[in-house]
Amino acid sequence: MIKAYIDVTLKKSILDPQGTAVKKGLEKLSLYTEDVRIGKHIEVLLKEDKIEAAREKIDEMCRRLLVNFEVETYSVRFEVIE
Amino acid sequence: MIKAYIDVTLKKSILDPQGTAVKKGLEKLSLYTEDVRIGKHIEVLLKEDKIEAAREKIDEMCRRLLVNFEVETYSVRFEVIE
Repeated sequence: MIKAYIDVTLKKSILDPQGTAVKKGLEKLSLYTEDVRIGKHIEVLLKEDKIEAAREKIDEMCRRLLVNFEVETYSVRFEVIE
Repeated sequence: MIKAYIDVTLKKSILDPQGTAVKKGLEKLSLYTEDVRIGKHIEVLLKEDKIEAAREKIDEMCRRLLVNFEVETYSVRFEVIE
């Protein structure tokens, strides 16, 4: 089996009010940052055993359901699970 | 500067209704998975230039605001930004 770790984030050009709110919350705790961006982390366990096949399936899942390409982008990492 | 990529996920023992809903949504598109888990992806840009200092700060941020340790766990990756 293969586990996919997908990170879906807002495109850089898109304002991130959630990230801004967290940045301010951290500042109240005297924890200062240059920038904070919030996105979705999706872990998908697949029965595929080849990374290329898993990548194709994950790309289709992102295209059809998981990612709104108008405002979001995504990156994915794979782990082979014995 | 250093960029931290934090993935906050529900502990394995905790039921994930959001993940179950996405799994079912994918099945309606004939995209079958063994399991789907949904979490938060947080990207934090820090002015620190040493990874150890950045790690300490990120761990404190997670302890004090970003992670609910009753039900969540987290992992973090670092990238040095020139």
